[in-house]
Amino acid sequence: MDKILRINMGSAKGPELKTEPLGAYAGLGGRAMTSTVVAKEVPPTCHALSAENKLVIAPGLLSGSAAAMSGRISVGCKSPLTGGIKEANSGGQPSQMLARLGYAAIILEGKPKDDTLYKVLINKDGVTISPANELKMLGNYDLVEKMKAQHGEKIGCISIGPAGEMKLSAASVAFTDMELRPTRHAGRGGVGAVMGAKGVKVIVIDDAGTQMRSPKDPDKFKAANKEFTAGLRKHPVTGQGLPAFGTNVLTNVINEAGGYPTRNFKEGQFEGAAKISGEAQAKLENERGGEGSATHGCHRGCVIRCSGTFYDKNGRFVTKQPEYETVWAHGGNCGIDDLDAIAQLDRMDDDFGLDTIEMGATIAVAMEAGLAKFGDAQAAIRLIKEIGQGTPLGRILGSGAAVTGKVFGIERVPVVKGQSMPAYDPRAVKGIGVTYATTTMGADHTAGYAVTANVLGVGGTVNPLKPQGQVELSRNLQVATTAIDSTGMCLFIAFAILDQPETFQALLDLINGFTGLSLTADDVSNLGKSILKLERDFNRAAGLTKIHDRLPNYFKTEPLTPHKVTFDVSDEELDQVFNF
Amino acid sequence: MDKILRINMGSAKGPELKTEPLGAYAGLGGRAMTSTVVAKEVPPTCHALSAENKLVIAPGLLSGSAAAMSGRISVGCKSPLTGGIKEANSGGQPSQMLARLGYAAIILEGKPKDDTLYKVLINKDGVTISPANELKMLGNYDLVEKMKAQHGEKIGCISIGPAGEMKLSAASVAFTDMELRPTRHAGRGGVGAVMGAKGVKVIVIDDAGTQMRSPKDPDKFKAANKEFTAGLRKHPVTGQGLPAFGTNVLTNVINEAGGYPTRNFKEGQFEGAAKISGEAQAKLENERGGEGSATHGCHRGCVIRCSGTFYDKNGRFVTKQPEYETVWAHGGNCGIDDLDAIAQLDRMDDDFGLDTIEMGATIAVAMEAGLAKFGDAQAAIRLIKEIGQGTPLGRILGSGAAVTGKVFGIERVPVVKGQSMPAYDPRAVKGIGVTYATTTMGADHTAGYAVTANVLGVGGTVNPLKPQGQVELSRNLQVATTAIDSTGMCLFIAFAILDQPETFQALLDLINGFTGLSLTADDVSNLGKSILKLERDFNRAAGLTKIHDRLPNYFKTEPLTPHKVTFDVSDEELDQVFNF
Repeated sequence: MDKILRINMGSAKGPELKTEPLGAYAGLGGRAMTSTVVAKEVPPTCHALSAENKLVIAPGLLSGSAAAMSGRISVGCKSPLTGGIKEANSGGQPSQMLARLGYAAIILEGKPKDDTLYKVLINKDGVTISPANELKMLGNYDLVEKMKAQHGEKIGCISIGPAGEMKLSAASVAFTDMELRPTRHAGRGGVGAVMGAKGVKVIVIDDAGTQMRSPKDPDKFKAANKEFTAGLRKHPVTGQGLPAFGTNVLTNVINEAGGYPTRNFKEGQFEGAAKISGEAQAKLENERGGEGSATHGCHRGCVIRCSGTFYDKNGRFVTKQPEYETVWAHGGNCGIDDLDAIAQLDRMDDDFGLDTIEMGATIAVAMEAGLAKFGDAQAAIRLIKEIGQGTPLGRILGSGAAVTGKVFGIERVPVVKGQSMPAYDPRAVKGIGVTYATTTMGADHTAGYAVTANVLGVGGTVNPLKPQGQVELSRNLQVATTAIDSTGMCLFIAFAILDQPETFQALLDLINGFTGLSLTADDVSNLGKSILKLERDFNRAAGLTKIHDRLPNYFKTEPLTPHKVTFDVSDEELDQVFNF
Repeated sequence: MDKILRINMGSAKGPELKTEPLGAYAGLGGRAMTSTVVAKEVPPTCHALSAENKLVIAPGLLSGSAAAMSGRISVGCKSPLTGGIKEANSGGQPSQMLARLGYAAIILEGKPKDDTLYKVLINKDGVTISPANELKMLGNYDLVEKMKAQHGEKIGCISIGPAGEMKLSAASVAFTDMELRPTRHAGRGGVGAVMGAKGVKVIVIDDAGTQMRSPKDPDKFKAANKEFTAGLRKHPVTGQGLPAFGTNVLTNVINEAGGYPTRNFKEGQFEGAAKISGEAQAKLENERGGEGSATHGCHRGCVIRCSGTFYDKNGRFVTKQPEYETVWAHGGNCGIDDLDAIAQLDRMDDDFGLDTIEMGATIAVAMEAGLAKFGDAQAAIRLIKEIGQGTPLGRILGSGAAVTGKVFGIERVPVVKGQSMPAYDPRAVKGIGVTYATTTMGADHTAGYAVTANVLGVGGTVNPLKPQGQVELSRNLQVATTAIDSTGMCLFIAFAILDQPETFQALLDLINGFTGLSLTADDVSNLGKSILKLERDFNRAAGLTKIHDRLPNYFKTEPLTPHKVTFDVSDEELDQVFNF
């Protein structure tokens, strides 16, 4: 990874391609790369859809190597949803492929002079960009089929669906998985709208003729990788829970803990949880034959393999195994307990290019507004269809929960910085509430996954129902996560490295063996802190203040069943998260 | 004015009425009253539609007296449009009537337990509140007719149309005029949505049996009132321009100056300006007979009488003489040069209860998004109709220009703090640009009407095309305006008091003669400053920073024809407006 591909979409003569050396960005990967480029090159007060914003796509530092779990990719920009900086993270194949082709980042910048839509093709011979108006308003699935027909079965695709083309604030960027399906998404914050504003429909990557990236110290790297992999296989979460039931193993766990947001965050337990749990889902998937549950990684090199395939009752592919957050968003949060309907909603979100978390939260707000009844799966499907059709209602919904709440006059909208909360009620899982409130990203569970110590007993234990200890827990996780998001590693490695010092050491050895550096745990922590500072400074300059580091007031006043708890971490404590 | 009417709409047993002494609010009127109550009683971070927000309606300090021009009224709350504090100002009869009944303020608070809609009746015998679900979704015109049938022809009404009931962010609060028509509106900032959130459809006021408020020093008051009135009649703007052609006298003036925002702020001159000018409008109105142009004040006691009546070609009443801002918003800003269509749009806005400025700006953004062609008056009418019908598209539009831009992915949206700019392009009238950027209200011309010295040669001369002197001009006007908005005086008195020291002295004598105080010019200025500080502190605590005291970036980069100017008052200068 020794170069950056920069495409100026606003050049007078049409898109202008430039391949640059890394320069000041050398040594950065993933979130460290995207956030540094955005902080350095994007004016914080610019309009997110303007020429001044940039979309940065960056493989992790270890992507393209043999390091296990290193295939995650970051997408960064100023977010049209939050108004702040954004890093949205995805699995899929493109990270490994881009890294092998030597690209540490793709930067899309400028604003197209007209509404021509473009296709970018990257292979070992270089980069081409060409008009592709025939792709307009294609769903991601049809789009990828077309790309396969044109470029063969060994490509990877980074694309937007109709939502991104319409520049809707809940639009995602899709990444193809190992089966060349557009099932992996940089979902959050409307990164797809920014790609749409740049006029790029799809980036096709063909890494034929390239090699795996080589470590500086092959022996150290190989030994560390072995130890690291063993550590992941040993830990109960990454070695058993996730492989057996996928991320949806959490439904029963979080519901049991009384922190499962139900019907637009009105209750903390869902009576239909068992019907949509990971256990029920695995059983169903296995019954329907073909590839069963938990048989897949989202990218080559994954050893956890928390994914799978969801077939309909006739054994036809519907979607990848829906994730916990998706099952919750379209399930319990909408009062829906029908796995087939949820899988269909997941498929539609992926096809239109929409963040499933934002969509589930939005449909629930729409249900609260009376557009449909909680529990009405067919109505939810109809509402999501409106987005694909680009109707006015569809555009409202595709703009996310905050806009939907505003347009329909609804007060109870579970967002922070305009972004919807994920699948943990902050009143009953207070550590994640601190993360929702304070992360630079808007409400986001992956930014500091305090569910670990709050509920799972991983990385220690902090009572989820009490305010004590949550700020420190969230801070430490936010710092560590920022570093992990820069390596290209899947965040799920955190379970093992939090609990097993030897696995954490193996990760350090892996990084050092690959890069030839001698990073310590402190160095990694300092990297995390320095990126968080960059992000926070960007947000400050964009007009986000500590007032925006708060949950909506009703979380402080409406007690949540069954524990009858409110969010009671004080504002003063929240302001101590960034004490470095 | 010795009491406050407080109605808790959220009481468990239904709405609870309380009449209180003024207490700490004694001596306050208009904006001083509304902003002080909001600053003191409303948590700045609350949701604007929540129980914690309050709607405050306050006559001016001199309202209900014989003082000329003293019938303006203020409506305050946390704004659903800007997220900051709001004072929206209106003419009409209710200010005088409430003041004579002794009410210095009505405060609506709490949140109704269900969706019952209420009617409030205030007369000399007291206050009653009763369910009035039969009024649901009535337009303001039908509503007022019903109230006349129930309560006679001598009432005044404060009401919301369907937009307020739907809690749309562009919803206004309507006030009846001297002919008992709902043509006067506290338009800006979505105050109607807050009234809707409180579940109050209409406040009917009957001041039968009450007397004009008496001055403390009748002789001084009477003499000052005479001198004040003479001063208004002497000044060319208040004595000639406004009476002859209404506020729309500005169309030709601002167009000539190259500061007339045309087709969503793309150009500074409109080729159809002459067809919709005040001169053309007066001619048309006079030709159509009946009450001609400029024959009306909006309230009793007005001596400028800048209003009139607009009839259709068959001599039937359509609306009051549309104001300059309205004619511009639905006219040049949408590329429309048809006065009949503009009058119809004005009528619809008043009937649905919508801010005409926000609506014109919104339709122009919708036209930029391709929903209609610039200049297509029938399409504009169809779009506004959607709001009255409450369709999804209507709800988008009724939420204002910022939401419409967001939902349709449009970058060029002329708003500050989420509120649409009025009828002066900030690039060619830079003083008003400073006001748009920095006022506590979101883009608002009335908050510091620098058009005076920039274009009209009133209160000195400051070159509108240069950045020099604009900050001081805007600051002084913002301070003075805040004070004037507290007296109940029409802002148009500013023309005369800026140019004629003896008229300003007459105003001071009028206030002192009425109140028995001995206020100096400095006292008035200090009142203005202290209210502005309260408002600014509220906004800070609500999360608005200096980053929000900025125009959208494109005003700094896109030159405006014909003068080829951008907005070049620096950020550092903008931050000096509030230097007190």
